[in-house]
Amino acid sequence: MNLHGSSGQSEPKSEPPPTIASSPPTPKLKISPRLNRWSMTRALRSGGVKIDRPQIQRSDNSPRRQLTEEADKKTSEIEGGDDVEITAVKSIYLVSDGTGWTAEHSVNAALGQFDDCGCSVNTHLFSWVEDEEKLIEIIKQAAKEGAMCFYTLANPSMAKSAKEACDLLGVLSVDILGPIIEGIASHLGVSPSGLTRGARGRVKTLNDAYFKRIEAIEFTIKQDDGTLPENLSKADIILVGVSRTGKTPLSTYIAQKGYKVANIPFVMGVEPPKTLFEVEPRKVFALKIELVVLQAIRRTRAKTLGVDREAENNYSGFDLVRKELDFASKIYAKNPGWAVIDVTNKAIEETAALILRLYHDGSDSSTSVPCISKRY
Amino acid sequence: MNLHGSSGQSEPKSEPPPTIASSPPTPKLKISPRLNRWSMTRALRSGGVKIDRPQIQRSDNSPRRQLTEEADKKTSEIEGGDDVEITAVKSIYLVSDGTGWTAEHSVNAALGQFDDCGCSVNTHLFSWVEDEEKLIEIIKQAAKEGAMCFYTLANPSMAKSAKEACDLLGVLSVDILGPIIEGIASHLGVSPSGLTRGARGRVKTLNDAYFKRIEAIEFTIKQDDGTLPENLSKADIILVGVSRTGKTPLSTYIAQKGYKVANIPFVMGVEPPKTLFEVEPRKVFALKIELVVLQAIRRTRAKTLGVDREAENNYSGFDLVRKELDFASKIYAKNPGWAVIDVTNKAIEETAALILRLYHDGSDSSTSVPCISKRY
Repeated sequence: MNLHGSSGQSEPKSEPPPTIASSPPTPKLKISPRLNRWSMTRALRSGGVKIDRPQIQRSDNSPRRQLTEEADKKTSEIEGGDDVEITAVKSIYLVSDGTGWTAEHSVNAALGQFDDCGCSVNTHLFSWVEDEEKLIEIIKQAAKEGAMCFYTLANPSMAKSAKEACDLLGVLSVDILGPIIEGIASHLGVSPSGLTRGARGRVKTLNDAYFKRIEAIEFTIKQDDGTLPENLSKADIILVGVSRTGKTPLSTYIAQKGYKVANIPFVMGVEPPKTLFEVEPRKVFALKIELVVLQAIRRTRAKTLGVDREAENNYSGFDLVRKELDFASKIYAKNPGWAVIDVTNKAIEETAALILRLYHDGSDSSTSVPCISKRY
Repeated sequence: MNLHGSSGQSEPKSEPPPTIASSPPTPKLKISPRLNRWSMTRALRSGGVKIDRPQIQRSDNSPRRQLTEEADKKTSEIEGGDDVEITAVKSIYLVSDGTGWTAEHSVNAALGQFDDCGCSVNTHLFSWVEDEEKLIEIIKQAAKEGAMCFYTLANPSMAKSAKEACDLLGVLSVDILGPIIEGIASHLGVSPSGLTRGARGRVKTLNDAYFKRIEAIEFTIKQDDGTLPENLSKADIILVGVSRTGKTPLSTYIAQKGYKVANIPFVMGVEPPKTLFEVEPRKVFALKIELVVLQAIRRTRAKTLGVDREAENNYSGFDLVRKELDFASKIYAKNPGWAVIDVTNKAIEETAALILRLYHDGSDSSTSVPCISKRY
């Protein structure tokens, strides 16, 4: 497994979504002693993962009824109580009655904990699952494939159905959104709407925040790569750094969060625009990176561009890269008000988090632990 | 509360992060009967929100020791068992030993369930909280402010400390990441690393997916707004639509997920580039929007740009907007292979989810329910 952030792109053609016919044989493994030790520690947190099988009333004539019959056939597979055997199937189903991005984001983050396990995992994201029939169909497919199921279902009745169906069919399931909504409901003392994201009248998209975000994205794209330095004073955040320090992807990532970002490339021997030295230094974030890592990134870049040998040396040659980094460092040293951020081996999300924390920290020193505050 | 997606930007100056000194008086509310009914339904899903108070050993000489003493003082405030009173303070703390984006994303999604509750909520995101001392300091601050606490802590010992500290100080808490990691560990039969995102050697950022994502973002920025139509054949996804249908923000959002996106504006009377009609139609997504909504967006845009009355009428006048939409519709009708997507009142994330589902659905018809698959 090799992942970082939410950057992986699916490969629909090389990896078709699962079908019942193609479900692989499922070798069985006992839980490893290492896992057991870890599970005991985790049990202190939340009581561990349970596979419950609630009683379903036979008089129910919903799609759940046929489900109970199917479940009976499967009973032998899920017998065994707490000592249930865990199959080695590595499919994960994500089911949502909205976009599914919350499930994808959370599971992606959690998968980061299994980077070195040597496992290969497939996720299948089902979005806009807004009726029970479709929900049950997906869970049946998960059961046949030996997949586990994460769900984010705003509609409480759908969430209940998902849990019941997963339990009946022996599909390990986790409700991602439910506990968070419950927590907030308890905290605020009000009930959630239960409306899905797409429900008419639920989302008020055309508010100030929407327009502000759009403006931030458009501003950021226009200022990319040092264009329009006369607009630097209008930026919330300005990124500077030599080529291939990730200024462009960082800019667009931060812009999605509603900040106007400008970025200025530092090129050996070229003076940065004067306006850069006129803006508030706390808005400027100077990116640095380890020499060998930058050289490796530039070599890959040169290959992608298909440039010739000489041009490649001018771009990724050791001496030249070192000199360019020195050139940038000297400018950074002359501007002690700029925060210098090391981007070596950091994912875009990580650098963005560091920058935004510093940005907000710099603007208010009244709290002992820096944080990013938002009002809803 | 007025929110959509992750678009809200914090206002550091107008809304300073909380300090102990500024903690507001906390009026108390009983849980409403409506909430109780809802809670019972939810209880079927996960057993509801519990406020546990585990026994902490007095021999412990960590920061938790002083905490137990502080907790004793607070006992009277958190007495009451299941009938505990919920205070009306609307601060939410998000604590992470990584970037904190998972906590922010999930809580933001859950807050969408409270859009119309008339509540005003402040979130405070604490990222890179990697030692117990800082963690306890934040939870103490949460307790003093009457905030609730969500956490995503990859380090199990930190997660345990968070739970214990929150329980001791009567801070309602929810572990967002723990149950997801537990579920995956059970499913795969392996233990999680317990390493935080920033831990050395944990994240392998410079892999193929990283370079693919960077390339997608850079491609997308270069193709924005119809530039370089000769490159359309290299795009994964092509968005077409009249001005202000959200092509640019949509493009950059989708690009972050690793897809190369090009967008072509449809302008009244201007023929779209020939290359658009040469690409695979399944790659083209034609955006449509309701006339009055588009007109409202354009009016806001014109105000932002500060254009004069005549120019504004040429851009957002009812007749002109209608004619331009008709012009686009006619081209759409001639290209039945293009998917037409209604963006009216949809957040960027929603339209992106619709487009990506269709994109993947179109490429594989072997599954009964369309989904987006990914390999890790």
